[in-house]
Amino acid sequence: MTDKVLDDVSHRRYNPLNGSWLLVSPHRTKRPWQGQQEAPALNKLPEYDPQCYLCPGNKRAQGDSNPHYKNTFAFVNDYSAVKEEQQEYHPPQATSDDDIASLLLQAQPATGRCYVLTFSAKHDTTLADMSASEIVPVIETWTRIYASHLSASHPLNDAGARALSEIPPNADGEVTPSQEQLRYMQIFENKGAAMGCSNPHPHCQIWTTSTLPEEPSKELVQMIKYHREHKGRHLLEDYVKVEMAKGERVVWQNDAFLVVCPWWAVWPFEVLVIAKRHVRALVELTSEERLQFAEAVQEVTRRYDNLFETNFPYSSGIHQSPLDCTEEEAEMSWFHMHFYPPLLRSATVRKFLVGYELMAEPQRDITPEQAAARLRDCGGELYRMSLR
Amino acid sequence: MTDKVLDDVSHRRYNPLNGSWLLVSPHRTKRPWQGQQEAPALNKLPEYDPQCYLCPGNKRAQGDSNPHYKNTFAFVNDYSAVKEEQQEYHPPQATSDDDIASLLLQAQPATGRCYVLTFSAKHDTTLADMSASEIVPVIETWTRIYASHLSASHPLNDAGARALSEIPPNADGEVTPSQEQLRYMQIFENKGAAMGCSNPHPHCQIWTTSTLPEEPSKELVQMIKYHREHKGRHLLEDYVKVEMAKGERVVWQNDAFLVVCPWWAVWPFEVLVIAKRHVRALVELTSEERLQFAEAVQEVTRRYDNLFETNFPYSSGIHQSPLDCTEEEAEMSWFHMHFYPPLLRSATVRKFLVGYELMAEPQRDITPEQAAARLRDCGGELYRMSLR
Ligand SMILES: O=P(O)(O)O[C@H]1O[C@H](CO)[C@@H](O)[C@H](O)[C@H]1O
Ligand SMILES: O=P(O)(O)O[C@H]1O[C@H](CO)[C@@H](O)[C@H](O)[C@H]1O
Repeated sequence: MTDKVLDDVSHRRYNPLNGSWLLVSPHRTKRPWQGQQEAPALNKLPEYDPQCYLCPGNKRAQGDSNPHYKNTFAFVNDYSAVKEEQQEYHPPQATSDDDIASLLLQAQPATGRCYVLTFSAKHDTTLADMSASEIVPVIETWTRIYASHLSASHPLNDAGARALSEIPPNADGEVTPSQEQLRYMQIFENKGAAMGCSNPHPHCQIWTTSTLPEEPSKELVQMIKYHREHKGRHLLEDYVKVEMAKGERVVWQNDAFLVVCPWWAVWPFEVLVIAKRHVRALVELTSEERLQFAEAVQEVTRRYDNLFETNFPYSSGIHQSPLDCTEEEAEMSWFHMHFYPPLLRSATVRKFLVGYELMAEPQRDITPEQAAARLRDCGGELYRMSLR
Repeated sequence: MTDKVLDDVSHRRYNPLNGSWLLVSPHRTKRPWQGQQEAPALNKLPEYDPQCYLCPGNKRAQGDSNPHYKNTFAFVNDYSAVKEEQQEYHPPQATSDDDIASLLLQAQPATGRCYVLTFSAKHDTTLADMSASEIVPVIETWTRIYASHLSASHPLNDAGARALSEIPPNADGEVTPSQEQLRYMQIFENKGAAMGCSNPHPHCQIWTTSTLPEEPSKELVQMIKYHREHKGRHLLEDYVKVEMAKGERVVWQNDAFLVVCPWWAVWPFEVLVIAKRHVRALVELTSEERLQFAEAVQEVTRRYDNLFETNFPYSSGIHQSPLDCTEEEAEMSWFHMHFYPPLLRSATVRKFLVGYELMAEPQRDITPEQAAARLRDCGGELYRMSLR
């Protein structure tokens, strides 16, 4: 058990995965809320929307037409944040220590490829509405896309080849490796208007870049450091052990995955899904583990919806081995998925990470132990099944 | 001039002040927006609202009554995130390297004092509506509160004493030093419902804590490193020089302060106000410089409102010397103020820092040079003056 006193006193907690602290103020939810209320999410969507640029058969903004796909559908984002081809850019090099412009105005070119991937042909569904076996094709497509972008010399190359031969291409849309070898693939979902999602059709994005982004980079540094300092043990290996022994932050688990509200959660109902064995990337999951991962994703998203009986908004993302990396970076990677949901008290009252959080450090109101207890209690049928 | 190519190619920029990178995708604003629209801010507020817990003479949630103040009014937050008194908490110490629970579940107690400070007695005003000389009392109160929390051995102690004797106490509400010596004072404002502000009455918060928060801590580390590596020059001293020479990111300036959209801006119209000379904290500003700082704040907030002809939301915050610190930390501090506003394209369409930004790294659409050019063009009278 956690020291009970942490339910009452303000304290800071350390996030060993990204190396930073956050402020926890358990008593603070008592304050009255007079601020912005989120609009309750629409739930009367049609199964097919002729205006939606993701529905099967529809035309997209730049003129392409979607195939009449059945499961998932992947395509290169019409408004990609990074592209494969662009004008070359050579940042100026500092000529001397007095060349302060080059010292302080540093830039580097960024290329890459951004995909959009739909989870289902149905406009009105979400991961929470889908069964684990319906989520499997999504995970299979993530795996295929990841595998087809691995570098030729990658330590996981054999696993990648095996995955590509084992998993049938069930996504419509072509996923060919990009010309340039890219460094990292970030799979993420923005769900709900509160999280900046501009289309309710269930989908995620996959931004693949020539550079290693800040967050996975910080995590790798921390995991490598932990491994060196603690007799070759992995950070998340130890963390899984601690949480399974303590129990109080565990939301759900199966043989392959542990679902917890991490000790260092910033978002009110933040969740971390961690592989129990040392899985470095999607391509190392067995087909049985892909099903178990689908179950974990299903459990998290259904519990979220049940918590406030709403279409629960969140951003989620997978962290795994870079596509192009050293032996050590691949070896130190540990497959996990973050869920960052903004709602705090109800379907319409969210936590804002604003002034103090942006200027000083993240602050949360309820404790992760309280959040986990509530999510444990939210199992069972999806609340809206009985309303249908 | 910046390499013109940066207006067209995706690239990363480095933030030397906090040591991290962000992704810039200049072409990306072309994508259509079908997502959430912000509610246009109410602007028909009464000058006095009997329901407002910040208006003069009103009762607050926990029963205290506000004085009939004229300028500013400071009081300890009724729902403080940190408090001066709480149960003691002694985090467990790791007994051996195998004590993985103590290694991975680290916490530390956090105490402190949180103030709320109103900017004006008028419920329906904002910094943008106030003149520089009306903003001066706000800056004076910030200075007095900061001065009265400085540690007895602080290198700026004389400056603090001078400020306290020079500035008349114009805030209603008592600001006595706290019992415990605190480490850092974060002054910040959340403005607008989009930035989690729950009351439009113009006010800021001041969270003073026993620990040094992450953001100012990262900045101090970077400033100290720069000073050591570059012949004893200050990072922001050099940065002011570079920006004044280049001009393209400068929004406005007077003798004492430079207002720029920093090279590394994350938020679409992010602004940095930097002291031109080496000012370590509020208490070192002369009365003439306080007026010049008020002018800078006025210029930023008025230009923001003029940009999309709306009550522009933002979070802002001041970074300066810690209250209790080493000689080096005080010496390396350089007074500046950040403004992080969310609006991107209009009064109702904001930038969301969500999926990719949370999981990978911050991403922006327009360049800081484009943002600065637009803010330079937004001077002149506050747009709503002529509508009155
Ligand atoms: O104290 P307020 O203004 O009610 O609260 C606001 O600012 C705080 C400090 O940035 C945040 O923690 C809250 O989420 C936000 O709603
Ligand atoms: O690409 P989308 O879903 O339209 O855009 C959304 O996700 C992106 C990646 O997190 C963000 O940069 C955008 O601000 C957000 O609106």
